[in-house]
Amino acid sequence: MPGTETAYQPTDRTVPTRSRERAAYDRELVHAILDAAYVCHLGFVRDGAPVVLPTLYGRVGERLYVHGSTGSRPLRMAGQADPGLPVCLTVTHVDGLVLARSAFHHSLNYRSVVVHGTAHQVTDADEKRTALDALVDHVVPGRSADSRPANGKELAATAVLRLDLAEVSAKLRTGGPNDEPEDLGLPHWTGVVPVRTAYGAPVPADDMDPSVPLPGYLAAL
Amino acid sequence: MPGTETAYQPTDRTVPTRSRERAAYDRELVHAILDAAYVCHLGFVRDGAPVVLPTLYGRVGERLYVHGSTGSRPLRMAGQADPGLPVCLTVTHVDGLVLARSAFHHSLNYRSVVVHGTAHQVTDADEKRTALDALVDHVVPGRSADSRPANGKELAATAVLRLDLAEVSAKLRTGGPNDEPEDLGLPHWTGVVPVRTAYGAPVPADDMDPSVPLPGYLAAL
Repeated sequence: MPGTETAYQPTDRTVPTRSRERAAYDRELVHAILDAAYVCHLGFVRDGAPVVLPTLYGRVGERLYVHGSTGSRPLRMAGQADPGLPVCLTVTHVDGLVLARSAFHHSLNYRSVVVHGTAHQVTDADEKRTALDALVDHVVPGRSADSRPANGKELAATAVLRLDLAEVSAKLRTGGPNDEPEDLGLPHWTGVVPVRTAYGAPVPADDMDPSVPLPGYLAAL
Repeated sequence: MPGTETAYQPTDRTVPTRSRERAAYDRELVHAILDAAYVCHLGFVRDGAPVVLPTLYGRVGERLYVHGSTGSRPLRMAGQADPGLPVCLTVTHVDGLVLARSAFHHSLNYRSVVVHGTAHQVTDADEKRTALDALVDHVVPGRSADSRPANGKELAATAVLRLDLAEVSAKLRTGGPNDEPEDLGLPHWTGVVPVRTAYGAPVPADDMDPSVPLPGYLAAL
């Protein structure tokens, strides 16, 4: 039964040609990397050339969702295309700058997930609502329940694409620099500079009633 | 003369089908967005399907450079392909989470640049060295001068791709939520949560001579 194995099955496309030791297919790891971000880079082919656009995504089990205006190019293309739009959806976290003694061994610590597959327009109204809630909650957990849900006109103006998690890999680098033995005595600072995403203090809109309290889910970001 | 105009010429590919007011072609703005990041998402087409991989990049004037093992797929493809490898290189900064009263008007503040073009392998040795220095300095300004330069073997193992900045656009969103007038009285917190990249305290490698001081360029990150 799909979705019950603990790992995604590697394919030709998901086995890297190099740094294979950095590739991983563990389902929980993939989910964790996906759930820790909310912006992906979605690639598709238009007139034979690649296009890569940043966009929000949400996850519901083994499905990812992206959304956009019904007028946007990839969403129109997925709607026209039968059977769907071939895409590559990539999510990347940078965790650290790795400074080696040699320029060659400089690197980044990172976690990334690459999903290959075919995106399909969501036509079921319930699935569309679930997907849109997931998109909002992916950015700010708990927010969909604390905002006015989309009305019929807004739903009609929003297209949602579904991409199954089937051909998926993660790639990670952790740890310090890997210098050549003969470089160890060189007088350059070497180590890792940690990198993370930081959230500033929430700034209320000018027209917000100042008696509305800051929600707990924002304080928890 | 290319590179002297103050803006990139819009093309069919760089004029969005929607939110046109967010698109920009100003050269200084594009450079600023590119220079404030160091990871891009590089898209190319393999066997008719899109592939999107995260990778480092550097900028030298109106040229971007990416690098990789001579064995990596896109670099091999660019070397094999004549006249080069069609790519789309995208850089995205997330600046804020925009929380509207309605789920529909939730958004992100962001700055992104999309570059369409054809990547070519760099074969000139001087250009390759310049590109590799730019890659290192793009992540940590000043670092290339404070590390052991690549030797002949390392240079031979590294392929560099060049992508001219010609078909380029930026896209930005700033400011607060744009709620519908009839939603202004709803009791949901609304505003912007600022997002930024934060650097932690540099962690020296275990085998580093502790008398090596922390360089000024790291303290300035």
